[in-house]
Amino acid sequence: MSSPFTLHAQSSRCAARAGEVRTLHGVIQTPVFMPVGTQATVKGVTPENLLEIGAQIILGNTYHLFLRPGHELIRQLGGLHKFMNWHKPILTDSGGFQIYSLKELARITEAGATFKSHLDGSSHFLSPEDAVAVQEALGSDIMMCLDTCIPYPATWQEAETATALTARWAARCRAAQQETGQLLFGIVQGGMYPDLRARSVQDMVSIGFDGYALGGLSVGEPTEVMYDMTARTAALLPADFPKYVMGVGTPEDLVECVFRGIDMFDCVMPTRNARNGMLFTSQGRLVIKNACHYNDPRPADENCDCYTCRNYSRAYLRHLYMAKEIMASQLNTIHNLHYFVNLMAEMRQAIKEDRFEIFRKEFYAMREQQIPPN
Amino acid sequence: MSSPFTLHAQSSRCAARAGEVRTLHGVIQTPVFMPVGTQATVKGVTPENLLEIGAQIILGNTYHLFLRPGHELIRQLGGLHKFMNWHKPILTDSGGFQIYSLKELARITEAGATFKSHLDGSSHFLSPEDAVAVQEALGSDIMMCLDTCIPYPATWQEAETATALTARWAARCRAAQQETGQLLFGIVQGGMYPDLRARSVQDMVSIGFDGYALGGLSVGEPTEVMYDMTARTAALLPADFPKYVMGVGTPEDLVECVFRGIDMFDCVMPTRNARNGMLFTSQGRLVIKNACHYNDPRPADENCDCYTCRNYSRAYLRHLYMAKEIMASQLNTIHNLHYFVNLMAEMRQAIKEDRFEIFRKEFYAMREQQIPPN
Repeated sequence: MSSPFTLHAQSSRCAARAGEVRTLHGVIQTPVFMPVGTQATVKGVTPENLLEIGAQIILGNTYHLFLRPGHELIRQLGGLHKFMNWHKPILTDSGGFQIYSLKELARITEAGATFKSHLDGSSHFLSPEDAVAVQEALGSDIMMCLDTCIPYPATWQEAETATALTARWAARCRAAQQETGQLLFGIVQGGMYPDLRARSVQDMVSIGFDGYALGGLSVGEPTEVMYDMTARTAALLPADFPKYVMGVGTPEDLVECVFRGIDMFDCVMPTRNARNGMLFTSQGRLVIKNACHYNDPRPADENCDCYTCRNYSRAYLRHLYMAKEIMASQLNTIHNLHYFVNLMAEMRQAIKEDRFEIFRKEFYAMREQQIPPN
Repeated sequence: MSSPFTLHAQSSRCAARAGEVRTLHGVIQTPVFMPVGTQATVKGVTPENLLEIGAQIILGNTYHLFLRPGHELIRQLGGLHKFMNWHKPILTDSGGFQIYSLKELARITEAGATFKSHLDGSSHFLSPEDAVAVQEALGSDIMMCLDTCIPYPATWQEAETATALTARWAARCRAAQQETGQLLFGIVQGGMYPDLRARSVQDMVSIGFDGYALGGLSVGEPTEVMYDMTARTAALLPADFPKYVMGVGTPEDLVECVFRGIDMFDCVMPTRNARNGMLFTSQGRLVIKNACHYNDPRPADENCDCYTCRNYSRAYLRHLYMAKEIMASQLNTIHNLHYFVNLMAEMRQAIKEDRFEIFRKEFYAMREQQIPPN
């Protein structure tokens, strides 16, 4: 089957690669980080801020939009892009992970997921077919299959059962898809069991998708297990399709997963931590409320050229945070998203120049950290 | 004494007038509305948003900045303009009104105001001389004298005592002022007593300021009393100096006070109401959470060309508000400030074309309201 992915460069010394993914709303250069816009807005930043930051694609949460304002309303108003005034690509998740996170409020059967709304307790049912239909109504560029998540730790049997159900649901998602031009990605599960990950890869590839995601990672397992699962799974996936690790991660995670062959990432960390006053910088993390920043005229990161760092001091950012001003969230979010997006751009460039391993060494040297074992 | 004000146009049928005020950071066209940036930020909007909206000057609150982050810190970091990245004019109030609002936490003596911080209960003292020194440290373009506010209702004797003290404080403020090029405005008090307002005008004019403000209005008195006090006081003030009504008001108040000869305004209403989901439009007020906006594809105001109205539907604004998203405050604030700033620009234009009374009639006709008695 045809792929929306084109490989531009492959590191000669590791699995890192650069390429592009073609979607209805434009081409994405990979590796790429996708800011999370849960409720049809990336919290605290305008679409214009996102464009200036260099964001190429954002993520919307199907579970949240399904409940409020509702996918039919968004369809009626012209789709999610028009609704939120973002005209570049959007990836929507399937709702599976959010429903899984509801724990006792959700019940999984062969048919699909029954769950209670976190907003008002109302009952809802989402089948694999529904998940695709909702994402078609939203009009996202990349849709995700409904999957069943696996807690950590889980027994092999628990993981096997959930992984098998995810495969049957994935086939139903693919069968239900209309011809809209939207891409559909399968999600590889398997818990922390390499044999189940391998089986899940086979299941997904035999159905055939436009791209493949790794689900169920960063759910509490040790970092080295996450990196190991990522490396093993990425190596098994077809090289000519995009590979996406869902919900990952720290700047270190992004570097390590690119090193292991991943193309796409999303995470709430830069936006959520920004609202909590934690800034990512080239030297590491900075907690803006700390008293040492009280009268510091320097920008958050002296190596950064984002709007926040060009115009505001640490002293001002600390003042806004202490005063609980909305502008604190706005400026911190702009900086953190710029850091993540720019980190990916630097990795793309390094891969194209076949110096990714040097980049990786320098990344850790600047923050005085050890490189994780390969 | 020389005035920073130049009159450009005077209505032939009422007291409305257009002019300009020259300050260290540029010229302000009047009549003008000043968005309030209490804590060194106009809540929810960037300086770039303010420039696009057409804001010419913003207001900072001395009381808040004195307590946090402190005027000495702001001076050390290059002044308020640099601190908050706003390079057009800034007016700072004196702190008098906020201290007055603390009620039992404040005590007024001949020497000045003793008060407890609303943040941590710490005790502070602010003399008229201190109020000027703090504003000089902040580096605002227009400073205000420390005044004593008068509750409503107040007896003539209470009002007389406070008005006389305000005059003695005003003289001390003027005497304490350094040669920085910053303007200093006197504040006319007098409560709701025309004879005391007249006496306060005489007191202030005999000291001699760069402009004159009307304080102690919009403090609970009937609207017609506020309009009457404004008209009487504005008529007594020298025509060749700027006239500023502090803390006023609704769009209707702005039109009525311009009609009565006022040049400058500030009010938290557009920004605070925006955060509470109330939008000002050419047809009147719109409460965005109302169910009728659920699926409305129209902008908040079909006659508005602000960023919010150009790009977002009422349905989207309602969704953001219901979902408690930061973006709700951002987009609503941009719209409301644009409405207030644009209303002033329309009034300026109408005055220059000597059709202000026609403008006033149309303003009320569009919102199906009666014109208040002159």
